[in-house]
Amino acid sequence: MSSSSGKRLRVLVDMDGVIADFEGGFLKKYRARYPNEPYITLEDRRGFWVSSQYGNLRSDLCEKAISIWESKDFFIELEPLPGGVQAVKEMAKMENTDVFICTSPIKHYIHCPGEKYAWIEKHLGYDFLDQIILTRDKTVVTGDSSVCSKYLTVRLIYKQPNPSWEHILFTACHNKHILPSSSHRRLLSWADDWRGILENKRL
Amino acid sequence: MSSSSGKRLRVLVDMDGVIADFEGGFLKKYRARYPNEPYITLEDRRGFWVSSQYGNLRSDLCEKAISIWESKDFFIELEPLPGGVQAVKEMAKMENTDVFICTSPIKHYIHCPGEKYAWIEKHLGYDFLDQIILTRDKTVVTGDSSVCSKYLTVRLIYKQPNPSWEHILFTACHNKHILPSSSHRRLLSWADDWRGILENKRL
Repeated sequence: MSSSSGKRLRVLVDMDGVIADFEGGFLKKYRARYPNEPYITLEDRRGFWVSSQYGNLRSDLCEKAISIWESKDFFIELEPLPGGVQAVKEMAKMENTDVFICTSPIKHYIHCPGEKYAWIEKHLGYDFLDQIILTRDKTVVTGDSSVCSKYLTVRLIYKQPNPSWEHILFTACHNKHILPSSSHRRLLSWADDWRGILENKRL
Repeated sequence: MSSSSGKRLRVLVDMDGVIADFEGGFLKKYRARYPNEPYITLEDRRGFWVSSQYGNLRSDLCEKAISIWESKDFFIELEPLPGGVQAVKEMAKMENTDVFICTSPIKHYIHCPGEKYAWIEKHLGYDFLDQIILTRDKTVVTGDSSVCSKYLTVRLIYKQPNPSWEHILFTACHNKHILPSSSHRRLLSWADDWRGILENKRL
């Protein structure tokens, strides 16, 4: 499982849509809170921003969508995505591999940052609290691979043309329709060959 | 005030002991909660870790010290250090200068991360929330200058021999007795020549 050869890797793993089921958690809580409002199935989700697609459906639904993830317990109660926690634990045990959880909190900071720490402790353990990086601009963090569910590095405040890491796109309901691009390798799920991508990065 | 020449700078500014008065806030709340216990004046503070020095004074005081900064409202109620907020605002307005607040939260995450965001919004404004980086390992963040009150990069989980930034030591009660070192430039206070250090880094 571990590599004793090749260079040391630093892997940045995102939370929402990569190891934590943001989309599923959102839809469940949205339907519970607004049972009579229209909603978008995961199958029909398009684009990174949930709030934009809901706003396009009907303008007042944008604010209703936002109210879901700004609520207490939204982030801590997200379910882990299949295989993600196990993959991160395995990755962290590999030789010459440093794993960081690099995630962007929402600007409504009352619950989100604290609950992201609580989620990591709950699913990955107390020691993993040292591996968390909260930043809304991921280009300031150095690493070799970044596993992230965004298609483009949208909403990065200071865009760098060449961040130090390669962006590995993690397939999510909202990006699975996007055609493959030479600039983004994909990880279809945690059952996909993430070990191969890491070993390839060591060469 | 601004520089139109020279390279673009990314400045990482720490919070505790640099723009937020952690030491003063701690001593005030410790004395209020434990009025009959011994305490260490700011004049007598030595070493980065407050809890270690209190533990050396009497072993049970280590835990009492920790209880202060693990309490609700400790971080949000810290007073700004003289000139710090103004300097950061001025720095952020300089041409070719990106300022990030790069700070390490304590591991007790119930209040600290959220309150650090709240402090930045309160003193630097809502837009500055985008500039916050919370990480317990600052070597993963790339920048040109890091203004920090720690003398050494102790407690960095993955030490890099050569982080991409120069560590500018901000003078604090606990490090002012340490002799100057060729490897650490100092900023004695925000009245000191931080503009000169920045311009020098652009060359």
